[in-house]
Amino acid sequence: MSTRITRLSVRDIRFPTSAGLHGSDAIHKDPDYSCAYVTLETEVSGLAGDGIAFTLGRGNEICVAMIEALREIVIGRTVEDIFANMHEFWMALANDGQLRWLGPEKGVLQFAVAAIVNAIWDLRAKQAGKPLWQLLADMSPDELVDCAELSYVEDALTPDEARALLASHASGKAARAEELRSVGMPSYTSSAGWLGYSDDQVRSLVREYRATGWSAFKMKVGVDIEAEQARAALIRSEIGADGRLMVDANQVWSVDRTIECMRRLAPFDVLWIEEPTHPDDILGHARIAESVAPIGVAVGEVISNRVVFKQFMQAGAMSFCQIDSCRLGGVNEVLTVLLLAAKFGIPVCPHAGGVGLCEYVQHLSAFNYVAIAPSLDRVMIEYSDHLHEHFVDPVVMRDGRYQLPKAPGYSITMKPDSLVAYEFPNGSAWQGA
Amino acid sequence: MSTRITRLSVRDIRFPTSAGLHGSDAIHKDPDYSCAYVTLETEVSGLAGDGIAFTLGRGNEICVAMIEALREIVIGRTVEDIFANMHEFWMALANDGQLRWLGPEKGVLQFAVAAIVNAIWDLRAKQAGKPLWQLLADMSPDELVDCAELSYVEDALTPDEARALLASHASGKAARAEELRSVGMPSYTSSAGWLGYSDDQVRSLVREYRATGWSAFKMKVGVDIEAEQARAALIRSEIGADGRLMVDANQVWSVDRTIECMRRLAPFDVLWIEEPTHPDDILGHARIAESVAPIGVAVGEVISNRVVFKQFMQAGAMSFCQIDSCRLGGVNEVLTVLLLAAKFGIPVCPHAGGVGLCEYVQHLSAFNYVAIAPSLDRVMIEYSDHLHEHFVDPVVMRDGRYQLPKAPGYSITMKPDSLVAYEFPNGSAWQGA
Repeated sequence: MSTRITRLSVRDIRFPTSAGLHGSDAIHKDPDYSCAYVTLETEVSGLAGDGIAFTLGRGNEICVAMIEALREIVIGRTVEDIFANMHEFWMALANDGQLRWLGPEKGVLQFAVAAIVNAIWDLRAKQAGKPLWQLLADMSPDELVDCAELSYVEDALTPDEARALLASHASGKAARAEELRSVGMPSYTSSAGWLGYSDDQVRSLVREYRATGWSAFKMKVGVDIEAEQARAALIRSEIGADGRLMVDANQVWSVDRTIECMRRLAPFDVLWIEEPTHPDDILGHARIAESVAPIGVAVGEVISNRVVFKQFMQAGAMSFCQIDSCRLGGVNEVLTVLLLAAKFGIPVCPHAGGVGLCEYVQHLSAFNYVAIAPSLDRVMIEYSDHLHEHFVDPVVMRDGRYQLPKAPGYSITMKPDSLVAYEFPNGSAWQGA
Repeated sequence: MSTRITRLSVRDIRFPTSAGLHGSDAIHKDPDYSCAYVTLETEVSGLAGDGIAFTLGRGNEICVAMIEALREIVIGRTVEDIFANMHEFWMALANDGQLRWLGPEKGVLQFAVAAIVNAIWDLRAKQAGKPLWQLLADMSPDELVDCAELSYVEDALTPDEARALLASHASGKAARAEELRSVGMPSYTSSAGWLGYSDDQVRSLVREYRATGWSAFKMKVGVDIEAEQARAALIRSEIGADGRLMVDANQVWSVDRTIECMRRLAPFDVLWIEEPTHPDDILGHARIAESVAPIGVAVGEVISNRVVFKQFMQAGAMSFCQIDSCRLGGVNEVLTVLLLAAKFGIPVCPHAGGVGLCEYVQHLSAFNYVAIAPSLDRVMIEYSDHLHEHFVDPVVMRDGRYQLPKAPGYSITMKPDSLVAYEFPNGSAWQGA
């Protein structure tokens, strides 16, 4: 039996979040969390897969157009054929002879590849009646390695090494899944520390989140270091010596400026500095990592592909690995980065927030703990309390921890009413905006 | 007096080059050379600037859409205000708070920024009545450094160093311009070595180009090393010991495979291996450079921005610097890379061919020689004999050398008839295709 993909549709969905300065940081001052929302329909009635490209608003239409440009590569294939030769499918999307010039493996093209590839995984998980993390955890090392995109990383990780790593953790998988089912997965929140918030707003949000179970908080920096020292002091005084505090500069500093600013923030016991400088500057991050230790360097939400992740790890430039579920080329390439992180002993703390990112990454972190990297030491998933109400199977948080998803699929399917109301520019949410 | 930009228009222009396998290589098997063609009109009647984003066909419409998305950042500004604060203008385009998520500084967004920024330079040069290279060569070190985008490269090159470098070569500028005017600029051709060509085709093209004055040839590799050894032998026997032979793998090899293949091609006295592996793998290229010396590593046509160029140079991973005029963020960022290359002592051999790239880069190489790096040692501009007939002021080749452009502007303006005939999908060239 085979399941043919018969239709690809894609919608421009945007939420007017900029009104409340949610998501404001040193460089993204007014994001409208948005996504290009792709649905792959099959010849089996009711069986479809959904995927998204997350964006900050303007330009969402460009992702929609790029997904449209990839349509012909997808339509007519069967899910079974795709999973029988994932490398060929991934390369067909990511390395089309004409379109690849627009990347390669980066930017809008990689976003579109990811949206489609993730929709395929959603479809496969729904077909199997399993949440995505479980589908992955139930796959054999051979099957997983066949799906991981390992080209151009063989100097850091060979397929045989990847298989051996997966096989070495096979025996404890059921027990670790049971553990997560019982106590959930650790998280931190970035919802209390946006730059646009006042001190009073931050203080009251930190208290609110602490009362609900969170003990790890991230604040934005990069605009006014004196004010940010004061804010770090405020948060540290609220969370006590046991709480975790991270800071995020969203790429605005130079290497030297980072080292200077982190010297000034060090007294507040900072766990990591996130995105201190230009995200492509691997060698610069390596110098920062050496200079600011024991404070770690967290990076990854705008790293385009496995080859750049590989080098960050090889160069000692990454202390915390922040995969982005929509920027890497879908689950296939995320698998590669999870395997690399395990090989290099780097904790994976996925980028989340926005719209749909929390829903996606909970599966990746659960699978990573169950099958690839069986330790929760310094592992946390980012959490932001925005827009979950639009999902059919939203994240469930308890005591500041992600609860293990149970419904079949990759949890990214949105409610039909939300898709209608927030479609840009004609949905009701955008009338009069 | 100020010159306000009043209109931005953009067209989808494509040439059906895939029919003849021109441009075929190991990874781009059927390019249709294309461009998103942008025109900025001003309130001065007849004064406009043109710019292009070069693509391989499919996806050209995505570049058109991205340029449209940037329109509001450009319209209403004056040319004079833009040149009075180029850094602010460049950042407004490249780092828009919402659009930058789709890059940052890479892929489709960077292509669109480049097309617009280059149109501004074309406009400025036409306004000044000078070819672009001359406009640049006549600017003072302070003016040039104000236009070069030097953010995030200060660890390799400070503004003061850049000014000093430019000042140190000021005295010989007129003589070097005169030299170029008299003898032109050296080039090599890639037009004889496409993968899709037969041996007979290659032999007869090499003879034809040699008869016209060329002595440096590039051939494509990366598919069948035995066949490529034979082809290298064929070309070397045609061009003699004094001719230059370069090979280009278009990213298909791993690091180890590159080292092995170059061992097999070394007997044919190869000057450089171009794009041996994944273009983002700086550390991999560094290992290749160390292993294949004295053969050089040439790279750059798909390097997205100055920060990645900087690291290739810092890591010793680049022996020849192949700037791409449409992928880097316009003249502003090209200036940065030219200055970095001069600091690191790396010859600049721009990527050209396609459509319009030869027309663009001749200006960059001329300016580089006159004002930044006064040596032609191992300096060559790529040349392909395609599509020049569509330009109002096309390149002029004599004895295998680029002749110095004379007309005002950046030489990218296309003939009105060509714009009409090749507009996709409704132009006459695409009827029945």
